Amino acid sequence: MSGADQAPDEFGQIERLFRPLTRGAPEAFDLLDDAAAIPGRPGHDLIVTKDAMVEGVHFLPSDPPDLVARKLLRVNLSDLAAKGAEPYGYFLATAWPRTFGWEARKQFASGLAVDGERFGLVLLGGDTVSTPGPLSLSLTMLGWAPTGRMVRRSGARPGDLLMVSGTIGDGLLGLKAAHGDVSDPDGYLAGRYRVPNPRLDLREFLRATATAAADVSDGLIADAGHIAKASGVRARIELERVPLSAAARAWAAAQADLFEALSELAAGGDDYEVVCTAPRPLEGFTVIGAIEQGEGVELSWRGETRRPAKSGWKHG
Amino acid sequence: MSGADQAPDEFGQIERLFRPLTRGAPEAFDLLDDAAAIPGRPGHDLIVTKDAMVEGVHFLPSDPPDLVARKLLRVNLSDLAAKGAEPYGYFLATAWPRTFGWEARKQFASGLAVDGERFGLVLLGGDTVSTPGPLSLSLTMLGWAPTGRMVRRSGARPGDLLMVSGTIGDGLLGLKAAHGDVSDPDGYLAGRYRVPNPRLDLREFLRATATAAADVSDGLIADAGHIAKASGVRARIELERVPLSAAARAWAAAQADLFEALSELAAGGDDYEVVCTAPRPLEGFTVIGAIEQGEGVELSWRGETRRPAKSGWKHG
Repeated sequence: MSGADQAPDEFGQIERLFRPLTRGAPEAFDLLDDAAAIPGRPGHDLIVTKDAMVEGVHFLPSDPPDLVARKLLRVNLSDLAAKGAEPYGYFLATAWPRTFGWEARKQFASGLAVDGERFGLVLLGGDTVSTPGPLSLSLTMLGWAPTGRMVRRSGARPGDLLMVSGTIGDGLLGLKAAHGDVSDPDGYLAGRYRVPNPRLDLREFLRATATAAADVSDGLIADAGHIAKASGVRARIELERVPLSAAARAWAAAQADLFEALSELAAGGDDYEVVCTAPRPLEGFTVIGAIEQGEGVELSWRGETRRPAKSGWKHG
Repeated sequence: MSGADQAPDEFGQIERLFRPLTRGAPEAFDLLDDAAAIPGRPGHDLIVTKDAMVEGVHFLPSDPPDLVARKLLRVNLSDLAAKGAEPYGYFLATAWPRTFGWEARKQFASGLAVDGERFGLVLLGGDTVSTPGPLSLSLTMLGWAPTGRMVRRSGARPGDLLMVSGTIGDGLLGLKAAHGDVSDPDGYLAGRYRVPNPRLDLREFLRATATAAADVSDGLIADAGHIAKASGVRARIELERVPLSAAARAWAAAQADLFEALSELAAGGDDYEVVCTAPRPLEGFTVIGAIEQGEGVELSWRGETRRPAKSGWKHG
């Protein structure tokens, strides 16, 4: 009769936390079965991606559980976005530490509910276990793309333009802001780090003419390098053309060396934009360079090839 | 020039450890892409299950890495087996602690290779991250079943027989043996705990006439209870009919109370057999009871309903 909401047992937790997230999808069998059964969609391939996140590595112990859940969904949706795929549903594995109690679990599930609704996702199954270690999450995200039409990393050809969506470097600066190392008066930067916005709106443009695409999760330079490697080409990034937010422009202008500052932003991760290649400019993207014969990534600065002095720069 | 095999960087590790496990499956894109693209199989549903395992919870820190990998595959294959599905491939997320070094990772991958080959599985994708905590693994297993023919948990009807494959209790005794608490001269019990044998051989029998099935992972009583709950019926287990291995029979005979001993074996987990229901006896299974109107699980002992004294017994 007290107001406190007591934690139910394991099966009660699944029923309370996770069953509503299936949104009645018949293929999830109310999470009462050992497996989900997914009918094929004629004319489509199932596009599948999987990302894991560990507390203290991929998010901060102080991050609100609902935001962690939303980030987990969104980093996986970002992979689908780069592939030109339409979101469908997901499988979730959670390893809960004992310290991650009932209230935190409910918050976590509420984050999944919010973004599940927003992106039209159904929870299809999963596993919940306990761990003596940090909160560890793994999500397998499913989407659909017309048969054989997934936008791959491997189709870039010399002469293609290199392009990126949105702005670059906000993820890195957002992490710095969350640590208090960068000023972020309106919370824009920390928001981009904590709740990235998967670029599912670019799907049609990508599928229409992109020869290759990847999401910007490891960092623009690294992810352009993934395309270069898979395609057997070189990606040239003209650093002065990389689009920046007002906050990132202000930060870069305040650094000692503009080239080094922009290199750092282009090397930082967690932007969750899309980098792609195509023979001609694509709506929704900014041209930042070109694909050439060769391998790896090269940076240009005001017309000349240049390498950042910073350690951590890795060719390709 | 030394004989030592140095650990490559992250991408080198993926190339060395995991790419061979795709066995050339085109849908995995050599693990160079953000996602896999899985074409539908006409006339089939994709059957998907996900299980997580954490060091110190689901396996022992001293367990050899290759056996841990094989168990991870096999517990997921056991779910497919109970569903009457044909194995296809898997996605793998690994959170490596720093102490789980290159040699251990190679052993882990070699276990995946051995059983991947044996069961005809292809690695389709995944994610490798680092963790400050224990080794944490999550696997999403994919299989195929004829459209609408997955054997579910929810089809059991009053009057059906309750049946189980193989022998029960070896998983529990195997864990005790691995801890040195049960004598296991020939290693049979520990072997059943460490490398379970998913009952994929029962697929055709299950699909032919089973009304419901689940794999025995939480324990015979609990998993029969899952069928009962999903089907809205009661499962009656006649305990004296539960099939035991010679090792389990010997162990039970040496206990103070035979009923309590058998109850403990039927409550123990990790057998990875299949419990199912059908209107008539099924090849490959032993009849151990029946489905009745009601709910939960009841144990019978020599014709009478009886509840074990042991704590931990949960009705249904």
